Parts: sequence; structure tokens; C-alpha cells
Amino acid sequence: MQSPNSSSEERRLEVRKLEISDKNKGFIELLQQLTVCDSVSDKDFEDRFQELIALGDDHIICVIEDDRSGKIIATGSVFIEKKFIRNCGKVGHIEDVVVDSNARGMQLGKKIVEFLTNHARAMGCYKVILDCSVENRGFYEKCGFEHKAIQMAKYFS
Amino acid sequence: MQSPNSSSEERRLEVRKLEISDKNKGFIELLQQLTVCDSVSDKDFEDRFQELIALGDDHIICVIEDDRSGKIIATGSVFIEKKFIRNCGKVGHIEDVVVDSNARGMQLGKKIVEFLTNHARAMGCYKVILDCSVENRGFYEKCGFEHKAIQMAKYFS
Repeated sequence: MQSPNSSSEERRLEVRKLEISDKNKGFIELLQQLTVCDSVSDKDFEDRFQELIALGDDHIICVIEDDRSGKIIATGSVFIEKKFIRNCGKVGHIEDVVVDSNARGMQLGKKIVEFLTNHARAMGCYKVILDCSVENRGFYEKCGFEHKAIQMAKYFS
Repeated sequence: MQSPNSSSEERRLEVRKLEISDKNKGFIELLQQLTVCDSVSDKDFEDRFQELIALGDDHIICVIEDDRSGKIIATGSVFIEKKFIRNCGKVGHIEDVVVDSNARGMQLGKKIVEFLTNHARAMGCYKVILDCSVENRGFYEKCGFEHKAIQMAKYFS
């Protein structure tokens, strides 16, 4: 007989790349937990999805789907910047990492960051970087990151 | 009669996009003032240059050429990241801004940052961001930026 908790141990919460059908699985609602993101039309979503697909491995978005609810419960992205410094080196930029507020404590954020970091390494990057709030510094240190600089921003709107 | 200083007032230190011939005008040596950048072969330079050209307005590098010495004395780059957040918004990432140590005090850094910022705005970005050392915070504040977050990094090599 299955105990109430055993199913959680059997859950396969694997990281995979974003698929176009994920819009209907709560992907946009998950992003709304991160920042401003009003409802995105199917057309706008598909257009942006195709733009990103065209960049291939130079810009990927990954997700974790809850195999019970069918909802997207974690996501993050990384894009590869091509430089001249570091002997024409490359840098991975991690962006927009978020875990659903109901799915915390399962190391999903760590899984997402590791997936993106491994991608950047496989792409030949000499480093991977990200910007975060001071409050999230501890989380990223647990992921093997160290504090290097400050982020400056200028908003147009 | 021309005074020793009048020519400096006549100098046209304009910002323009990187050209392939700039490698022979001290572009790599300028980057070496920023960070590790050994000698880049002509082949490696051309390959990376063509990769970036293929990205069009989504990734540009600008330079200022000293019209007297023919040397590149300032540079910076910006690439446009396409997101789903902010209603499929875009963000400009400024990178690798450097001014030759012999050409400081002429507001060239400000010119470079303004060029890159204007490009990001024209591309429809909702913000432009960059990472810098604590020491450079004042410079970027003069350019209209504000401190927003911290940068975390993980080096592979």
C-alpha cells in the first residue's frame, strides 16, 4: 500500500528545455512570481519562442514540470556571450531563475542552476555569471558561485 | 597660428562600430588593459568578428579611434537579451567598456556608454544593465545608472 509520502520520493522532477506547449502549463504564471509579466498572448509567446529557438544552444530556457499537476514549477535561462577578451572567450549569463512558491525546499533551484551551469561549461565558457539580490547570495554560494561585482541598471520605462 | 592645444579641440573623437581593420589599430592591446587577453590570431579575430556580425543589431561593439595616432582608444559592447518577462521584453547588457590609460579625462567612457545605452533603447529594451567593480560605481552613476543588485560568478578555468 502506498503511503501518502512515498509518491514524492518517486517523483521524477527532471530538468528539460522549454517547449511551446509549456505556456499552457503555467509557465507565464510562474514568471509572474519573479517580476512584472502580464498575460502574454499565444502569438507573442510563439514569436519569442521561435526567436529563441533560432539561437540554438546560444540561448536556452529550461524548466521542471510537476509530473503530478502537469504544471511548470521551476525555470531559468542562460545565454552565451561571445567576447574578444580571454582569447575570444565565451561567458554564460544566467537569468530569470524562479521556483514556484509551493515547490520550495526540494532543491529545484539548485537543479536549474546546475543544468544551466553545465550547459555553459559544455559550450566552452570560461565562466558563468548572474545578478541577484543580496538576499539570494547564500543560495548561489551553495551553488558554487562567489560574489564578484555589483550590478548597475538604467530603466527606460 | 595654431596653439599647442587647439588641435585637441578640433579632434573628432566619434563613436563608431568595430571594423575588422581595427585589430591592427590596437584594439586587442586596449582590451588587455581591461583583463586577460593574450594575442589573438588574425584567423581567430576574423572568425569571432563574423560570428558577431551575424547577430546584427543584437550584439554590437563600438570603438573610438584617435584621429591623430590612428589607434583605438576606447571601446564597449552591448548585446540584446530576449525575455518572456516584462511582456516579452528585451534587456541590453553592456560589457567590456575600457578607455586607454593615456586618453582618460576626455569623457570617452561616457561617450561609449551613451552610445551603447542609446542602441539598447532604440532596440526596444526596457532597461540596460552592466556589472562593474565598486570603484567604478560613481562613473556609472554619472552616466545615469543606479546600483540594483550584486553579481555572482563561477569560473571554470
